[in-house]
Amino acid sequence: MTAAPTPTSQRYKLVIAYRGTHYHGWQTQEHDVTRVQLPTIQALCRAAVMDVVGHPVDLCGSSRTDSGVHAKGQVAHFDTHMTQIPPDGLRRAVNARLPADILVRSVTPVATTFHAIRDTVRKRYQYLVWNAADKPVFHSDLAFHRWQPMDVARMRDAAARLVGTHDFNAFAKPGHGRSNTVRTLYACDVTRRGPRLVIGVCGSGFLWNTVRILSGTLIEVGIGRTPPEAIDAMLASRDRRTAGPTAPACGLYLQWIEHQGEAPAASGAA
Amino acid sequence: MTAAPTPTSQRYKLVIAYRGTHYHGWQTQEHDVTRVQLPTIQALCRAAVMDVVGHPVDLCGSSRTDSGVHAKGQVAHFDTHMTQIPPDGLRRAVNARLPADILVRSVTPVATTFHAIRDTVRKRYQYLVWNAADKPVFHSDLAFHRWQPMDVARMRDAAARLVGTHDFNAFAKPGHGRSNTVRTLYACDVTRRGPRLVIGVCGSGFLWNTVRILSGTLIEVGIGRTPPEAIDAMLASRDRRTAGPTAPACGLYLQWIEHQGEAPAASGAA
Repeated sequence: MTAAPTPTSQRYKLVIAYRGTHYHGWQTQEHDVTRVQLPTIQALCRAAVMDVVGHPVDLCGSSRTDSGVHAKGQVAHFDTHMTQIPPDGLRRAVNARLPADILVRSVTPVATTFHAIRDTVRKRYQYLVWNAADKPVFHSDLAFHRWQPMDVARMRDAAARLVGTHDFNAFAKPGHGRSNTVRTLYACDVTRRGPRLVIGVCGSGFLWNTVRILSGTLIEVGIGRTPPEAIDAMLASRDRRTAGPTAPACGLYLQWIEHQGEAPAASGAA
Repeated sequence: MTAAPTPTSQRYKLVIAYRGTHYHGWQTQEHDVTRVQLPTIQALCRAAVMDVVGHPVDLCGSSRTDSGVHAKGQVAHFDTHMTQIPPDGLRRAVNARLPADILVRSVTPVATTFHAIRDTVRKRYQYLVWNAADKPVFHSDLAFHRWQPMDVARMRDAAARLVGTHDFNAFAKPGHGRSNTVRTLYACDVTRRGPRLVIGVCGSGFLWNTVRILSGTLIEVGIGRTPPEAIDAMLASRDRRTAGPTAPACGLYLQWIEHQGEAPAASGAA
């Protein structure tokens, strides 16, 4: 008898875009009562990958996006011993098995030491506000509609106060379970093009709902309900009740994630 | 006894935008077998108007858009004796009763001689092709994805051959029931911005599925399957089998309708 050759394992990094509207978020989960598996982006991507490689895989995603949240550049990794498939062939085969609202943008072979969660250096999110009198008929699930005129200069003043290393407990949904609530926000910018007002945030990591609470607070500043200076007191309070409302999931996009030793994946129009 | 004053009737013209994805087209209709009323844009708009004015109305729409087809500027009219509501108050009240994917853009009092169908002078449609390698994750129901490189110059050559007064029977779905199949196409243009390739057509009126068949044919020309000159023979044949495939409903937008004595309603981003 000849010893079977040891299968060589290869780790792949995936960059994934999706419209979160029809899914219960990224993370695989069961219904509380019925135990039926709910439709999630992770479950669909994992099933597509397994169908291509022909064996069970673990698909580890960098960010657990909530129900209704979109992504232009989610990052995930998995291991396979099917190393003979060229990365772009793998990408096309997986995409052929995914619905119209989920797309694997790239498949890259990486070292087995690469880890989608542990190696995260920076993440960028965008929050899209549709700031016009009329609601966005064609984008009702892709933006948050606020008709009130918004003052971008005031919002930028408030945004600048959030940049830096702070305790973000006032901007986190209670029950996040993190003992350390200090995070670094590298950038927080507000831009407008026609009715589209975009709040962009880049940080080392975010607590639960932080981007949606930051966005909800900046919107309150923009429409004049909160002065920009109030941000300082909110941060100092560490109390969720001092910050603004949580903006809805439909306006939130995970734009890109940068990993150790790598530039972030480009995120163009998808 | 005093004679009751004769109620004065007022006709209103509505300009309506909608995302057709979740509807069985514009026109109110029942399911073939169950007789259950299907969700249509006309039925929802009519119910919203009736709820505001407090009496039954007929809502007459200019174009019967098919299931899945979108509109930026559908036109409809109705009569009411509730003449004391200011037009913009009426607009806001109706919009408050409509779902997120239907919007009344304007409400204008018009003469009772105005008729949404009979007074149509010109209509403009747009067909949106998402021409890029990757599918449009965020716009899967708002554009038709073709990854093949498309030659815009060839498409323009073909489009120019369609402009003018022709018998469009080769570009109509059989069973349209019109005895006169001669129509005038005032313009047919092809423009590109990034992955978005737009075919715009403006005409006196269109036969059933004509814009989708014109678009499907121009796409075949763009990807090199059909020479631009073939358009001439298609028109001459009057035979549907000679033209290209019917492009899917998801890429089609009714952009505006011009009525006698009126400029077309503007159709910006909605």
